[in-house]
Amino acid sequence: MDSHIIEALKDIVGAERLETALEERQCYSYDGTGQEYVPEAVAFPDTTKQISRIMALASASGFAVVPRGAGSGMSGGSLPVAGGLVLALARMNRILEIDEANQLAVVEPGVITGNLGAALAPLGLFYPPDPASLKFCTLGGNVAEGAGGPSAVKYGVTRDYVLGLEVVLADGRILETGVRTRKGVVGYDLTRLFIGSEGTLAIITKIILRLIARPTASKTLLLLFTDMHQAVALVATLLKEQTPSTLEYLDNTALNLVADKLPFPLPAATRAMLLVELDGDPDSVALQSARLNDFLDSRPEILHRQQAQSPEEVAALWQARRCVSPAAFTLRPHKISEDVVVPRSAIAALVACAEELGHRCRLPIFTFGHAGDGNIHVNIMLDKADQEEVRRGREAQKALFQEVIRLKGSLSGEHGVGLTKAPFLDLELSATSLDIQRQLKKLFDPQNIINPGKIF
Amino acid sequence: MDSHIIEALKDIVGAERLETALEERQCYSYDGTGQEYVPEAVAFPDTTKQISRIMALASASGFAVVPRGAGSGMSGGSLPVAGGLVLALARMNRILEIDEANQLAVVEPGVITGNLGAALAPLGLFYPPDPASLKFCTLGGNVAEGAGGPSAVKYGVTRDYVLGLEVVLADGRILETGVRTRKGVVGYDLTRLFIGSEGTLAIITKIILRLIARPTASKTLLLLFTDMHQAVALVATLLKEQTPSTLEYLDNTALNLVADKLPFPLPAATRAMLLVELDGDPDSVALQSARLNDFLDSRPEILHRQQAQSPEEVAALWQARRCVSPAAFTLRPHKISEDVVVPRSAIAALVACAEELGHRCRLPIFTFGHAGDGNIHVNIMLDKADQEEVRRGREAQKALFQEVIRLKGSLSGEHGVGLTKAPFLDLELSATSLDIQRQLKKLFDPQNIINPGKIF
Repeated sequence: MDSHIIEALKDIVGAERLETALEERQCYSYDGTGQEYVPEAVAFPDTTKQISRIMALASASGFAVVPRGAGSGMSGGSLPVAGGLVLALARMNRILEIDEANQLAVVEPGVITGNLGAALAPLGLFYPPDPASLKFCTLGGNVAEGAGGPSAVKYGVTRDYVLGLEVVLADGRILETGVRTRKGVVGYDLTRLFIGSEGTLAIITKIILRLIARPTASKTLLLLFTDMHQAVALVATLLKEQTPSTLEYLDNTALNLVADKLPFPLPAATRAMLLVELDGDPDSVALQSARLNDFLDSRPEILHRQQAQSPEEVAALWQARRCVSPAAFTLRPHKISEDVVVPRSAIAALVACAEELGHRCRLPIFTFGHAGDGNIHVNIMLDKADQEEVRRGREAQKALFQEVIRLKGSLSGEHGVGLTKAPFLDLELSATSLDIQRQLKKLFDPQNIINPGKIF
Repeated sequence: MDSHIIEALKDIVGAERLETALEERQCYSYDGTGQEYVPEAVAFPDTTKQISRIMALASASGFAVVPRGAGSGMSGGSLPVAGGLVLALARMNRILEIDEANQLAVVEPGVITGNLGAALAPLGLFYPPDPASLKFCTLGGNVAEGAGGPSAVKYGVTRDYVLGLEVVLADGRILETGVRTRKGVVGYDLTRLFIGSEGTLAIITKIILRLIARPTASKTLLLLFTDMHQAVALVATLLKEQTPSTLEYLDNTALNLVADKLPFPLPAATRAMLLVELDGDPDSVALQSARLNDFLDSRPEILHRQQAQSPEEVAALWQARRCVSPAAFTLRPHKISEDVVVPRSAIAALVACAEELGHRCRLPIFTFGHAGDGNIHVNIMLDKADQEEVRRGREAQKALFQEVIRLKGSLSGEHGVGLTKAPFLDLELSATSLDIQRQLKKLFDPQNIINPGKIF
């Protein structure tokens, strides 16, 4: 990056908000994939106007700009693979407005997802999407990747709560999209075109979020099984009767990874776990709970059923669930982590496929995730220093994706394509779809300067 | 349209599926706006492949193609303003698949919305969007316009239930978008780019719809008021406590239009009505109903409260509500009908504005609609033979739109821009937004042959 560009960037954001030292740049070189690409500079803008000026400069000078929230993405979305400038949005972390009467919030992209929840709670309002990383990921990243979470089975995903956006286009123009109302059909749906576009079409600078009334009560149950297929079959039957707010499952390996974090000891025969949560107002939760317990009473395959008795026990259960992903590294130093999604009726087939691949490829492969919506996290553990393991890991990954497509699923339910799934895109998308998508990228970013090297 | 094109079209769909006689073409010249544009020919394809061949021919020959469902649209979306071919999709009316285990349906665009509901009911499944025209409008039209309905306050709109699409592009290529799962973030969200694009980007040929479990019980209440502002204020307070499945209001004029269709006599002092419906399973409805009645007991401004006692009474109430729009023509022969939407807290201001405009412009202006989501149908009644009334009607329309934008609302909640709102688009969308939208239109339809003359 030429020194005159560096000077121009300093002029825009202030010298103290532009980092060029290697040790600083390295801090913005990685994400949740464990891959590393060191950018040429890192800018810390705090206004839309600064970002507009940066993009105008990038267009004029041709350098790449890679927006970055917390760097917790799982598909490489924030990695500066082509160098250039990382646009670190952490300072744009203001909750600009909470409109109680109309149940909406306007936020900057750097707001940490959990911080919005904390600000809404005293007002009786609720923003449902709950990625496992909610204590550190940002709403801008959630929107860019189309993040989901355990509560999607009842409440839907990020996309379902974004009413409108402000974005900066490649040439620096500022564009407002969407509405502040539940309905709105004026013009093409640019809002949802940007959601899940993985930071490749424009820089998100403001987000209008729809909120709902906060559930005032919940109940959390742990169900244990001696066989994972029993757990999966139970989910399918349960969902015909009612919709819990979460329905998470852990297979035996996942369970062992976090067993010491659970607030209850596990019976020795335990091989799978379901975490079920109900929410609503106290009367509704009592009703749901009675119905759920009636249903569970009729299911002799449940090895053990335990209801969390205190907020601390609930917190411990969730903490354990959220630790599965990081804890996996005790198995092997590296992980190929996929968040494939299949129609609910195909979950059992997918889980069987993952088990079979583990045997065939001689690697620890375990699964856990969102049983209610078919979004299963498949984790292929390996040591990248062992070329043979890497080869077998890639083989397992490809076979997994092929099975997902055969089962009419999708390669990613909530993490995005980014770098890691880009080589497999044509398994899911037709040549026509890829052609249209490349044309869309070109329309918004003719010079390929916004987060280049992603998706395609 | 040249005779060789007519022959080529007959070759594609069969001679008996292509109409060129004036009296037949006239049947496909109008829609819910009352405007009329006679097409040069009408084709009745029944396969995607036929549509693909038609579009390839249209691209090669440069004639316009206007997709049409039931012609019930309220913004002119299906009017062939530039002549050309009307693609009548009524024969593509098959429900291709109902997947009970995964709660989804795959349908052709010509399926009548209410017919899907009827097919799902015995299976305990439910497709919530319920435009007032549901007995005759089509799902393809609903998707194209981004239709909503009274149940949006609880269940959302068409957009929230479309998982994926099959469309035919301008050049005849067939494109599949989306997924068969609740989650899915692979590539740009083409599905939602087509939803609400008013038939201007591609021809929708297949729709994958998400379904939910059918509510097994409901309760319908009629609340009467001596003042409409009391009704609107009550809605705002009620929504803080619970979410009915519908919350419709009728002002005094709307009420008088359908009073003879109501199953109860109205007290003479009645000036406004709220129609409230609760749904769910029987236990949940009992709980909601008790809470609602507690709430209503504390509101002395309610003139009269009446619960529908039988399915027939419920049907009569809904029939009355759905008749408001057609019954309006007893006031004046023509109508400017707007489906503006404002943040809930601004409903009272919008209603006051409509009343004031009625006085100022000396025209009957009345409002009714979806009080729960701020989507208010404003009806300006006039006689088009009276040029002075037309002028005053246009003045009222423009003033209304300006107020809607000032209140941070949108010009259309569920009807679309089409022809009727196109002149006002720049009140809501910025020059940058319009530029991007025009580029998108050009990307998908470089020759401007798919439903030309709409939106922009």
